[in-house]
Parts: sequence; structure tokens; C-alpha cells
Amino acid sequence: MAARTRYVAVVGPGRCGAELAQLAEEVGRALARRGATLVCGGLSGAMEAACRGAREEGGLTIGLLPGNDRASANEFVSIALPTGLGEARNALVARAGDAMIAVGGEFGTLSEIALALKLGKRVVGLDTWELSKGGNPVAGIEPARDPEHAVALALADAGEDP
Amino acid sequence: MAARTRYVAVVGPGRCGAELAQLAEEVGRALARRGATLVCGGLSGAMEAACRGAREEGGLTIGLLPGNDRASANEFVSIALPTGLGEARNALVARAGDAMIAVGGEFGTLSEIALALKLGKRVVGLDTWELSKGGNPVAGIEPARDPEHAVALALADAGEDP
Amino acid sequence: MAARTRYVAVVGPGRCGAELAQLAEEVGRALARRGATLVCGGLSGAMEAACRGAREEGGLTIGLLPGNDRASANEFVSIALPTGLGEARNALVARAGDAMIAVGGEFGTLSEIALALKLGKRVVGLDTWELSKGGNPVAGIEPARDPEHAVALALADAGEDP
Amino acid sequence: MAARTRYVAVVGPGRCGAELAQLAEEVGRALARRGATLVCGGLSGAMEAACRGAREEGGLTIGLLPGNDRASANEFVSIALPTGLGEARNALVARAGDAMIAVGGEFGTLSEIALALKLGKRVVGLDTWELSKGGNPVAGIEPARDPEHAVALALADAGEDP
Repeated sequence: MAARTRYVAVVGPGRCGAELAQLAEEVGRALARRGATLVCGGLSGAMEAACRGAREEGGLTIGLLPGNDRASANEFVSIALPTGLGEARNALVARAGDAMIAVGGEFGTLSEIALALKLGKRVVGLDTWELSKGGNPVAGIEPARDPEHAVALALADAGEDP
Repeated sequence: MAARTRYVAVVGPGRCGAELAQLAEEVGRALARRGATLVCGGLSGAMEAACRGAREEGGLTIGLLPGNDRASANEFVSIALPTGLGEARNALVARAGDAMIAVGGEFGTLSEIALALKLGKRVVGLDTWELSKGGNPVAGIEPARDPEHAVALALADAGEDP
Repeated sequence: MAARTRYVAVVGPGRCGAELAQLAEEVGRALARRGATLVCGGLSGAMEAACRGAREEGGLTIGLLPGNDRASANEFVSIALPTGLGEARNALVARAGDAMIAVGGEFGTLSEIALALKLGKRVVGLDTWELSKGGNPVAGIEPARDPEHAVALALADAGEDP
Repeated sequence: MAARTRYVAVVGPGRCGAELAQLAEEVGRALARRGATLVCGGLSGAMEAACRGAREEGGLTIGLLPGNDRASANEFVSIALPTGLGEARNALVARAGDAMIAVGGEFGTLSEIALALKLGKRVVGLDTWELSKGGNPVAGIEPARDPEHAVALALADAGEDP
């Protein structure tokens, strides 16, 4: 039953170049191969690339859309849910994942990362934000070497070291 | 692709007797047979009965949970999404459906009916609220004769008369 | 300190005729005279009339706006808060009041009434919805004779009979 | 009319030491002296210190609470609004301010900063997060020298250089 699968939120920018799209697509593929359900914001860019990868491997993708219109979902979203909440839907994306993978990202992505960390979720990063205070790096986002590693980290139980 | 299926919100009380549960289960079954995706609040009572019916027919069920814990979903929810929004998630349920079927219902259900009507969605009722002002009935909830009729109405395009 | 005043949500249609506006304005006036803080959706119609009445008596009015733009508040809102949540902000209006007064109303108002009743709040009605199931009236909205009576009911402790 | 004042969101940790509390309190004082309305999450720590400072100078403070209970607001909140949205209320705090001042901060604060930047608002920082990607600092949070400077920046029109 899908409710017992792992849900992983994949967050990233709504517009991105080919390199980042490649990373996101491979994240989606690796998640689907492991049987995880992908949750995202449902729009274009890194979100679309991740959904495309997941669907190519037969995976399930959920899009929590900021607006009112289901048609704004990218074509690789299996379940498109318009929330009408605007940017507040970022909190839903953070909460809907058991863990999060951030691929690149602008400020919206940063908000999703921060909300997930606030909720105590594991956040894995690929080419994404670095956080520091007073010149010192702050632990939180776990950097991954590549998409496979990112997915392995996201699906590992806390404490495991894949 | 699931994004192109019809999404129908099924709303009803979190606790209900056998008769109402029977109606909700048949609504779920009829929706699944027609290939529609069922969206609900994900909890017990009429929501659980509708999900059970849909799953028995191989349908897909989505639960938009009010709390933070995916485990609060009933066991027949395919995709369980904790929103952490409390009662504000009722607006998500209303928005996520292309149409709504209300089976019985307390005040929470009434709020979902009202939100769906406000959003201009078709709302079909089985043994549910009646609305009036100044002693005069107000059109809005379309009464159905039985679960099959309810589903036929919910899936009909506006203007059709199934 | 304002946090210790009573907060009363006033809900009603965004467009209304002179008679309903008169009722809403008198509700606003009576709330302000009693020192209560008025919370509403911040837009036009009955909301604006209630705010106007409250401000004329030196009261404080809070508008929880559905959109992103503070400028959409009516001119009698003291504190205008854009929520960007769309209709989901109706849940905020219901929660923000210690009690609710409904003046007239369309489906949006009905959703606010239902959410407040779901949350266990007292809801007082003036020329508003009537609820029934199976042909039998359902208790919930307490009808008031006039604006003064509505405010007295809304500010009474549960169990008092003003 | 308060709706025409400037609204400034002050964000910071729910627990903080004396030094950070001192900064937050001075931010609150400076905002109130300039006639700005302070919006915050309404809880303890830096939020409480900022509200205390603002109230000492006769300012107005609004608390957008994550939970359901108005009593969770700190005692210096003038207008306490329980939202019941959990961490999703961070989006409301970001949207409610015309600008934002971040004082210190943990992950919740980071989410508010990111949401405000996403919404195109000016964000001023005192002893708060530093953002970078690929080892390079990312512009966004404008660092202030002290509380007075932070408030001057927050109240300046975009493009001014206070």
C-alpha cells in the first residue's frame, strides 16, 4: 500500500539549466527504482525533471501546487493537487516527505529546506545552499556526492551511513 | 496519467453508523469503477468507508490529513499526506476535487461543502445537510437517490443530467 | 492589553444591500462600545460595514485578507493582514474569534460558520443561514433579534442567557 | 489609520540568550518610535523581546501564533491571532510584513527569511544566517550594524541608502 512506502520530497528551482535538470531527473529515477513516492511542488524546472525521471522508472509523483489550477502541474505529475495556498504550500511539501532532497535551488527551495529541518527531517543536498552563521558552517543539509548517494541518504534511517 | 483522471472529494463524518458507512463505501466503489481518484480527509468513519470501497475496486485514494502524522490515515488511504493545517485542510479537500460528494456529515463536512460551493464546484449530497435562508431552501447541494446516482452526478459535466 | 480583550469574528457577504449593511454596521458599533476587537475577512460588503461601525466608535478592526495585497482591505480595517491563502483564510477567521456573528451570507460565510461550529465556538446569526438535516433543524447558529442582541450573545459566556 | 502604517516582520528564535534579546528589544523599540507595526510569530525568545521593546515605546505588536490557543502569545503581544497552521504560519509572517528584520535565528527563522526573499521583500539581518552556494555568498539578507540601522534599512524604500 502506497501509504507504507517512503515519501521523499524533492525540491529545487522552477527554472533550471540542463545540468541541474540532469541531476534532478536521476534523483527521480533512483527514488522510483527504490519504490519511494516522490512529493514536490509540481511545477517546472527541477521539479519537472525529477518527476520525469521517476515516471520513466514507473514511479509515483505527487505535485502540491501553489495555485488553484490543476493544469499548472508538469506533465509527469501522477497526482496533481492544487492547494491555493501560494508559498505557504512549501510547508506542505516539507511536511509531506519523510525526508527531503534539494537539487540546486533559489529562495523558495531554501524555505522548503529550512521548514524540513525545523520539522526534524533529514535533508540531503545536491549543488544547493550552504548555511553558516558568524562565518561558521551550520550542520543541517547533508551534502551528497551524486543522485544515487542522495537517494541512499534520504532513504537511510537516521543514524545509518549509506 | 492520474493527473488526467477526475478527482472527486468525498466528505463525511469521522464517526458514523453502519448505514452511512454502507453509503460511503458504495460511493467509493462506484468512483473506482469509473476510474476516478478519491480525495478525502483521510481519517475514520465515512472517509474510511469510502476509501475501503474504492480500494476494493482497485481505486486510488488520497488522504489530506489535518495533523502532522501520516499514521493517522485510515488503512485504505493510498497516498497519505499530513498537512499540519488543522481544520484549514478542509479548504484543500474542497479545492482538490473537481466535484464533491457529501455523505452524511457534521459541521466539518458542512465547511467542506460550503468551501466547494464557494469555489464553484458541483456538490452532490447523500443524506446530508439541507441549506435554507429565511425559510426558503437554497440551491447548492444536489441530492442524489443513491451512491451510483451520486457518482454519476459528480462525474457529469456541468449541465448534463445523468 | 488588546490580547486580553474579546475577539469577535464578524462574517458576511462581500457584497450586500443597504439593509444588511445597516445590520453589520450596528454590530460593529456595538462590539466597539463593548471594547471587543473585531476580526473579519477585510473585504467589502458586510465586512466593510461592520468595520465602519466599529471604527466610528473607536474600535479596533482586523482584516485577514485572502490575497497577497494589503491594499485590498476596506478603508475601515485597522490592521490589514494579507494571508495569500485564498479561501483557506476562512479557517483563520473562524479560529481568530472567541465567538462569531454572521450577518447574512453566501457560501463563503457558511464555510466560516461551519468552521467556527466545528471548533466549538459560539455562532450568532442575523438574517443568515438555517441548517437542517432530514427536514429537521440542527442547532448551532443562535439567532439574534437585532445587532445589540447578537453582540450580547457573542460576548456572553457559554451558558449565560443575555 | 494603522492599515497605512508600515508593517515590519521581526523574526528570531523562540529561545535566546540575553545578548540577542537585547538586540531584539532595541529593534522593537526603534520600530515603535518610528510608528511601524511589528508583526511576529507571537511566542517567546527574540519574538517576546521585540514585542516588549515595542510596547515600552507605545507600539502595536501582532502575533501570528502557530497553534490554536491565544494564551500561547507572549504578554507583549497586542493582537494575538492563533492560526492553527503550525509551521505554515511562517509564510503568513513573511507575507504580513512590508519588510523583515531577522535577529539571530534557527531553522524556523531561516524559513521566514527565505519566504520573505521569495516574495521579494527586503530582509535585514542582525547576527543571523549567512547564505552561500558553491562557496560564494548569495545576496539577499542585508546585514545591519545595529538595531537602529536595521530599522532604518527596513523602513527605507527600496533603493534608498540610509
